Amino acid sequence: MEDYRRNMSTSPPSSLRRVTIADIASASGVSIGAVSFALNGRKGVSESTRERVMQVADELGWAPARAARSLAEAKTDTIGFVLARDPYMLGVETFYMRFIAGLESEFAERGYALLLQLAPNRDEELLTLKRWRNSRQVDGVILVDLAVDDRRVAQLSKPGALPAIAVGDPSVAGALSSVWTDDDASMRSAVDYLSSLGHRRIARVAGLTDLAHTTIRDAAFRDEMSARGLVPTILRTDYTAEESAAATRTALRSDTPPTAFIYDNDIMAVAGLREVGREGFSVPADVSIIGWDDSVLCDYTAPSLTALSHDIVAFGAHVGRRLFDVIAGAEAGAFKDSTPELIVRESTGPAPR
Amino acid sequence: MEDYRRNMSTSPPSSLRRVTIADIASASGVSIGAVSFALNGRKGVSESTRERVMQVADELGWAPARAARSLAEAKTDTIGFVLARDPYMLGVETFYMRFIAGLESEFAERGYALLLQLAPNRDEELLTLKRWRNSRQVDGVILVDLAVDDRRVAQLSKPGALPAIAVGDPSVAGALSSVWTDDDASMRSAVDYLSSLGHRRIARVAGLTDLAHTTIRDAAFRDEMSARGLVPTILRTDYTAEESAAATRTALRSDTPPTAFIYDNDIMAVAGLREVGREGFSVPADVSIIGWDDSVLCDYTAPSLTALSHDIVAFGAHVGRRLFDVIAGAEAGAFKDSTPELIVRESTGPAPR
Repeated sequence: MEDYRRNMSTSPPSSLRRVTIADIASASGVSIGAVSFALNGRKGVSESTRERVMQVADELGWAPARAARSLAEAKTDTIGFVLARDPYMLGVETFYMRFIAGLESEFAERGYALLLQLAPNRDEELLTLKRWRNSRQVDGVILVDLAVDDRRVAQLSKPGALPAIAVGDPSVAGALSSVWTDDDASMRSAVDYLSSLGHRRIARVAGLTDLAHTTIRDAAFRDEMSARGLVPTILRTDYTAEESAAATRTALRSDTPPTAFIYDNDIMAVAGLREVGREGFSVPADVSIIGWDDSVLCDYTAPSLTALSHDIVAFGAHVGRRLFDVIAGAEAGAFKDSTPELIVRESTGPAPR
Repeated sequence: MEDYRRNMSTSPPSSLRRVTIADIASASGVSIGAVSFALNGRKGVSESTRERVMQVADELGWAPARAARSLAEAKTDTIGFVLARDPYMLGVETFYMRFIAGLESEFAERGYALLLQLAPNRDEELLTLKRWRNSRQVDGVILVDLAVDDRRVAQLSKPGALPAIAVGDPSVAGALSSVWTDDDASMRSAVDYLSSLGHRRIARVAGLTDLAHTTIRDAAFRDEMSARGLVPTILRTDYTAEESAAATRTALRSDTPPTAFIYDNDIMAVAGLREVGREGFSVPADVSIIGWDDSVLCDYTAPSLTALSHDIVAFGAHVGRRLFDVIAGAEAGAFKDSTPELIVRESTGPAPR
């Protein structure tokens, strides 16, 4: 098989346009050997020759022949990030821009670029990952939105798979390295805080159940409520402002309206805040509100929003560093990022009598 | 030179790991010819053989040999986007996530990915563009933050340059295709509206002067103010909330405080709104505020913000489509996107007596 492989391997295309060192030698009037020395930064050519060669190489558009390097060694200086998401949804979430900004802060130092691809669904996301592996277009990949029994985790755990970092709970990251935040502890702190203010009817406005962190928050919420003899109310949404407003409205119009809401993201919290006002309730006199993933949004609403605050840019940078460790051959591990802290602002107060 | 080129061209690396059709033939027990037929979707092999071959190819991690195709024809299915920007700044701006979301909506349809690289400064940005051209890593590039006499425009106008789309005024796009919004008309409409409400002391809180659109807005602002016999006040900032707040404070503490502010982005407008309140002024009774690039931020502040509204996601999609036209060989043109419209909310009202 090895023989076949050699025989069948890459043959020179018939009409190459790639600039070779011979082109540069010809155009600059020096020997091929001198060009090679100059381009590789080796001694043996004068400084003026080196400058001349570099200039000509630049003019001709020369680049080190990536294709001629062994693919096994090829570094693409690119990290892949595929998101199964509607492009319009991406535009309203503040999380991903901050997360990507954090990644980029680590990439910039190393000259890496981010290859970002949106996929309409999980199947297409899997195909993209497979394609990236086969074409060796990226040095590593970042997995987010981990699900229970995530097929991507299975795929990236196979021998020969691309180096990967899972962003999410180690319980769903399989054999992959993971960077995670303690959603369980964060949720418990939010319920504890509201409970200490006397709230007994607390509603959780939750995101999509197919995500592992939603399930973890659900469980923690139920557990803390039950431990206090309280009934946990969980309202399902798709993470949008619209569904958040609708869920909030429905809950407020029920016979036993909640006196406090915990929202799964910042957009849902600001939408909920406005809906509470429209329904004739005052924040925080009648209803208290907590948002998840503090952002500039929470700080500028009136009243400003109490929120679980997490430095998403730092989180993205942490994920980037751990991925570079994986690429460098580090053993897999589960790395805990800082736990979101409750920042108390104006939207929370004592439960109404 | 042609001979040299052929002689020096890509030679097979010594330890190839790329999977060849010979490997697949060997592993699936069929002829190389049959594998080739199967992989290329040609007739001449049975359906069961084709399935078997596809399965083995997938297991072995086969991908069409990009390196073996002529580089002149190579399609990378990737668009490059380099931003000279601090990663942390990227995380606070809502513009780019929406713009990227719009691009991705067009890319997704065509199976394209976005190669996003942050550069610490303009020099590094130029180097990245040069590297992408030389390595042919992308099929085309997107230029934003156009400056007067932009060096990137010059570079991308050279023969053999990568296909490019300039996002900005045609006056600074040189020979490149451009997609632009009418900043001049938008600014005039904002001044006109405030003037109709009786405002005479209007301040523009502006972004960075090295950007062409800042200069265009400056000129339109000065022109409209002068035409009314009013003194144009322009306050310079770096686009951040902090500098916006500081500029607003300084202006309000002057002997002749403005009765209206026009801010260059949404973040600056919300920061300005809060600062106006902290300085003891009421919005809109004492001070009116207009933000640029309406976003969810403007809608959820209290009072909500009057803003120049532009569908950034649609704008990004428009840019994506025009770039694909350029790649397909379309003639260069200047394409006007929709003009931002003033959405009047609660932050603007009659000038105080």
